[in-house]
Amino acid sequence: MAVYTEVSDEELVAFVGEYDIGEVVTCKGIAEGVENSNYLLGTTSGTFILTLFERRVRRDDLPFFLGLMEHLAGKGIPSPTPLKGRDGNALRQLCARPAAIVTFLEGMWPRRIRPEHCAGVGDALARFHVAAADFGMNRRNSLSVGDWRPLLESCANRADDVKPGLASELWRELDHIETHWPALLPGGVIHGDLFPDNVFFRADRVSGMIDFYFACDDVLAYDLAVCLNAWCFEGHKTFNVTKARRLLGAYRNVRELTPDEMSNLVVLARGAAMRFLLTRLYDWLNTPPEAMVTRKDPLEFIEKLRFHQRIKGPGEYGLD
Amino acid sequence: MAVYTEVSDEELVAFVGEYDIGEVVTCKGIAEGVENSNYLLGTTSGTFILTLFERRVRRDDLPFFLGLMEHLAGKGIPSPTPLKGRDGNALRQLCARPAAIVTFLEGMWPRRIRPEHCAGVGDALARFHVAAADFGMNRRNSLSVGDWRPLLESCANRADDVKPGLASELWRELDHIETHWPALLPGGVIHGDLFPDNVFFRADRVSGMIDFYFACDDVLAYDLAVCLNAWCFEGHKTFNVTKARRLLGAYRNVRELTPDEMSNLVVLARGAAMRFLLTRLYDWLNTPPEAMVTRKDPLEFIEKLRFHQRIKGPGEYGLD
Repeated sequence: MAVYTEVSDEELVAFVGEYDIGEVVTCKGIAEGVENSNYLLGTTSGTFILTLFERRVRRDDLPFFLGLMEHLAGKGIPSPTPLKGRDGNALRQLCARPAAIVTFLEGMWPRRIRPEHCAGVGDALARFHVAAADFGMNRRNSLSVGDWRPLLESCANRADDVKPGLASELWRELDHIETHWPALLPGGVIHGDLFPDNVFFRADRVSGMIDFYFACDDVLAYDLAVCLNAWCFEGHKTFNVTKARRLLGAYRNVRELTPDEMSNLVVLARGAAMRFLLTRLYDWLNTPPEAMVTRKDPLEFIEKLRFHQRIKGPGEYGLD
Repeated sequence: MAVYTEVSDEELVAFVGEYDIGEVVTCKGIAEGVENSNYLLGTTSGTFILTLFERRVRRDDLPFFLGLMEHLAGKGIPSPTPLKGRDGNALRQLCARPAAIVTFLEGMWPRRIRPEHCAGVGDALARFHVAAADFGMNRRNSLSVGDWRPLLESCANRADDVKPGLASELWRELDHIETHWPALLPGGVIHGDLFPDNVFFRADRVSGMIDFYFACDDVLAYDLAVCLNAWCFEGHKTFNVTKARRLLGAYRNVRELTPDEMSNLVVLARGAAMRFLLTRLYDWLNTPPEAMVTRKDPLEFIEKLRFHQRIKGPGEYGLD
């Protein structure tokens, strides 16, 4: 739930007046996204999403994010298209914050994941990777394998407060991941955060991918490993190989994995679990309890991590 | 900000299937209302508001609230109309909670109040009072003058933690209000909570009144006194007589006040300030800081109360 900034009606009317989208009819803060303030904006010409970028998003990254969305929309990927004001700029100012209006996407994110959803997200992720291949801008992943050690260092002395023994378990795992991390897999623009609440469906078909604010350059198969963690577990512990088989199969129908990508999928999945475990642990330890933000449980990923540690090879993900 | 209940897509599709409003296209939790979970629901036939009634609303009161909304809508008052399912019922169950779908109202509530808004709300409140006069159901006001003493008793021993001297000031004021409260003013159905966030405007005209979940039977002029407190102060301290004059004048154009209502307006305004001060104080003292709810400052109303204590008569509200 996130509406950090109250936009007055006068400011909103002036802001929307810079676009050719008619007059403001309604504007409601929506309980989606954690980093930014999001409003559902109705005008006489349609429905849009208004986003005010709050502190956690770096200003310098905004042209990359908005440029990527525009690039994807131009390739037919169901993603929000940034609207340009009459001066040609999509990135503007509202309430002293960077702000943008993007197109509204129909559909709902699935609260209960079925294998059909996993097939949909695998297909959509692969199409995203292919469509973004000729996007001209770059952004370093600030949460990639090399960033996990400093993140763990900043949490380690209090990690055992969350779960006894957690710090030593994570140090051991991080040593393994760093040692085995693949050097030369196919790279490109990744979404980086394609969890169920970022994918909309209508009648089991993907109708939208949203929230490109972790997108960056990295190993493509790592993005798939993020999805294995996000879409293919029942609860926190039980891996559902049927879902993984559908996810991976649908991905490979659009973009085939190289043998190297397949053989490295286990360490990528361990890394993906580590990344979300660490950022959630950091937020858990550093979010004051009175903050108006739901802290996500870091320990969800310790169980997922242990699953990936136990398996013998990528065949157990349902890879043929 | 309030979305307490996550509705799964399957549950939602089944629920909407009980109405003749087409298929679900989108559903987003909205950051409005404090008592209930509200979703903006888009279907193939239009936009609606889905409300799940949470614990703070008494189940037995729901037929009154929904019946009132239906009555008002039938009289052309711009208020949400409850939709009936194919079985004829507006009040249904979703996620083990009472739930209803109502029509969506255009407009935005004014973040910065201008005198034009006050005229609009005065007119709308009077039309509401007139339209509700022949509504056939009854609901006792559970937050009327007789309920303030037990409420203050429950807060008094900690009130001075919020502001030193607050308890004795409130006891003195409550004695005065109880002694001077008028016995026989015109009564009827009041809104009871017509603050700016419950009134939508388009181009300075009222396009909707919402949130009838405090509506009840009480003194009509008390509802006007609530609006004086809610709409006619600049900040917490400065009373704006221009706004009050517009509010009262527009009200009286539709429904003239009796001499008794006018002469009692000051004590009604003191009572209205007391009522919101006490419920906010109660919530302040009883809401755990980690709750995902914004606690509203009770002390906003101590300044308003002191203003009403100081004035010599209703003429200072701009009443002719």
